[in-house]
Amino acid sequence: MTPSQLLEQTLASITSLDADAMRAATERQAILTKPAGSLGVLEETSVRLAGITGVCPPAVPQKVAVAVFAADHGVVASGVTPWPQSVTTSMVENFRAGGAAVNVLSRQIGADVAVIDMGMVDDVKEDAVVRVRKVRAGTADLAVGAAMTRDEALEALGTGIRIAEELADAGYELIATGDMGIGNTTASACLIAHFTGRPAAEITGRGTGIDDAMLTHKTAIVAQAVARIAEGAGPVDVLAEVGGLEHAGIAGLILGAAARRVPVVLDGVIVSSAALLAQAFSPDAVDHCLAGHRSVEPGHTAALGALGLRPLVDLDLRLGEGSGAVLAVPLIRSAAAVLAEMATFADAGIDAGTDA
Amino acid sequence: MTPSQLLEQTLASITSLDADAMRAATERQAILTKPAGSLGVLEETSVRLAGITGVCPPAVPQKVAVAVFAADHGVVASGVTPWPQSVTTSMVENFRAGGAAVNVLSRQIGADVAVIDMGMVDDVKEDAVVRVRKVRAGTADLAVGAAMTRDEALEALGTGIRIAEELADAGYELIATGDMGIGNTTASACLIAHFTGRPAAEITGRGTGIDDAMLTHKTAIVAQAVARIAEGAGPVDVLAEVGGLEHAGIAGLILGAAARRVPVVLDGVIVSSAALLAQAFSPDAVDHCLAGHRSVEPGHTAALGALGLRPLVDLDLRLGEGSGAVLAVPLIRSAAAVLAEMATFADAGIDAGTDA
Repeated sequence: MTPSQLLEQTLASITSLDADAMRAATERQAILTKPAGSLGVLEETSVRLAGITGVCPPAVPQKVAVAVFAADHGVVASGVTPWPQSVTTSMVENFRAGGAAVNVLSRQIGADVAVIDMGMVDDVKEDAVVRVRKVRAGTADLAVGAAMTRDEALEALGTGIRIAEELADAGYELIATGDMGIGNTTASACLIAHFTGRPAAEITGRGTGIDDAMLTHKTAIVAQAVARIAEGAGPVDVLAEVGGLEHAGIAGLILGAAARRVPVVLDGVIVSSAALLAQAFSPDAVDHCLAGHRSVEPGHTAALGALGLRPLVDLDLRLGEGSGAVLAVPLIRSAAAVLAEMATFADAGIDAGTDA
Repeated sequence: MTPSQLLEQTLASITSLDADAMRAATERQAILTKPAGSLGVLEETSVRLAGITGVCPPAVPQKVAVAVFAADHGVVASGVTPWPQSVTTSMVENFRAGGAAVNVLSRQIGADVAVIDMGMVDDVKEDAVVRVRKVRAGTADLAVGAAMTRDEALEALGTGIRIAEELADAGYELIATGDMGIGNTTASACLIAHFTGRPAAEITGRGTGIDDAMLTHKTAIVAQAVARIAEGAGPVDVLAEVGGLEHAGIAGLILGAAARRVPVVLDGVIVSSAALLAQAFSPDAVDHCLAGHRSVEPGHTAALGALGLRPLVDLDLRLGEGSGAVLAVPLIRSAAAVLAEMATFADAGIDAGTDA
């Protein structure tokens, strides 16, 4: 099957959320021993999980994967970050060794970290942690021209779909997503500016920490690159022009997981910009996602608004790697557990007729 | 020892946070493999845990208790809630049976629920879950006069201190706090209005869900009761005049835990109003607390501001029972784990000289 056929078949498999399961979840929330609505966003989350999985109450997701998509970015040659590109490789080796934040946070919740080399400049070795699916050795500089070809964009999307299928086949009930790639907030800002229609100056942020002069330069690059996107360009064209290989992988993962009815937890600004790309292919796919957290990056709030998602964690994080997605997993498990395990008013012999 | 002596001895044992441990934690955060500050509030939380426990890195708190203080309120006779007082007892029995939200959430994080009958109207039996420490069978109606005597207030504070000591002696490394008591948002609003100096109309909320007419009535009761507090009244007098027995227990727990350097996770508006009471006895005690969540009750944001605490979870909850405190525990554990377990730049062979 060509990547293009795989994408079409995946999009055809994505359905809307299961309305019957959502109605059953809403009705069950109303008879549990608590004032109606008093568990706020946890209640909404349980209803969405029912809709995604088609089951009420949905299972508490025990087997969780954290899929971290890594790639390099030609735009670093244009001076958008003070970090050397070699840090992408160093951090992937840190993920492999278990020393990064995402490893520590994943161990806390018993989740497995899977790192996907979508297109790092350096070669890394394959093992139980790192899957080498390199589409090309880093993108071209999006400040100068298209980041990749249409064929490469399609191949990278297909790679993400395949990762979702592999994780679903391995029994993962929930997939948290993350990223690693020096320079990738620039590509993310381009995607968000394009898909939300907001100006580059409002969307572009300091990433891992840049000064005012570099921010001005980065913003100008984003504005120019977005202006280059042709009127009426489709999502594959947009991705090829200004995206990153990890963005493609994450968008593919979101589409592939939605087709398999496996919920995906989004991380910060990079993952959410990739979710906007997935949304351009299939609005239904984003309904199968939960927003893990709100990053301090200015583009993230705009992206979440366009995705229609409310973040579960809001603690001024700006690390990436999937850290904000992983932190949200206990809240998601708790939302499912409440729906499945709480006593009803009838169970507890309480008259709820006050309708308080 | 009299309750008054126990209180004095406890207050004398409370120290400020350990500045050396906090400095060591701040310095360690700066050399971990992430951009400086990129884990936001998690980093601040790890520094506070170091300050409370006096250790860097602080241990990841595995053994967690959820102390739920239950009591009844005479003010229900004045029509401040549509729920019958018998629901306090029904919910305590629900806690005992493991069917309430706090039970489900505690099971998710492996925490033990301890319910303390501080002054329920009904008699309940003592067992492994419920500790009967009844000071009196519900408060008097605070709409009419003082809720309790000064001696009862001191006894209830001492009971809370003893609970903290029992839990610390049993090896609990973190104590989440909660409440159960029909009518207790009225007493909470009185405490918050008094300690923050804000008007009753701004502080009083709908609790478990009341209509506009009842809210107007409840607000008037709060305003009248607060106006009755004498100029220059001490915290024991304030508690006796407008407080609840669970508020006293929670304030005592906060003081007792601070004296033992055991961190306390605050829940919503009831617990936070009790924390204001603890703060009036000892500002240092509140430094030993973490705010679990922000409730939708209007008084809660005012209370958190006066306490100087930022909530970890902000998901429109308004249940009480300790639910918001328990949900924050995985975030607190993650904050400690990051500080203890992440690789440093030197470990990972990364040059962090960019100071990005």
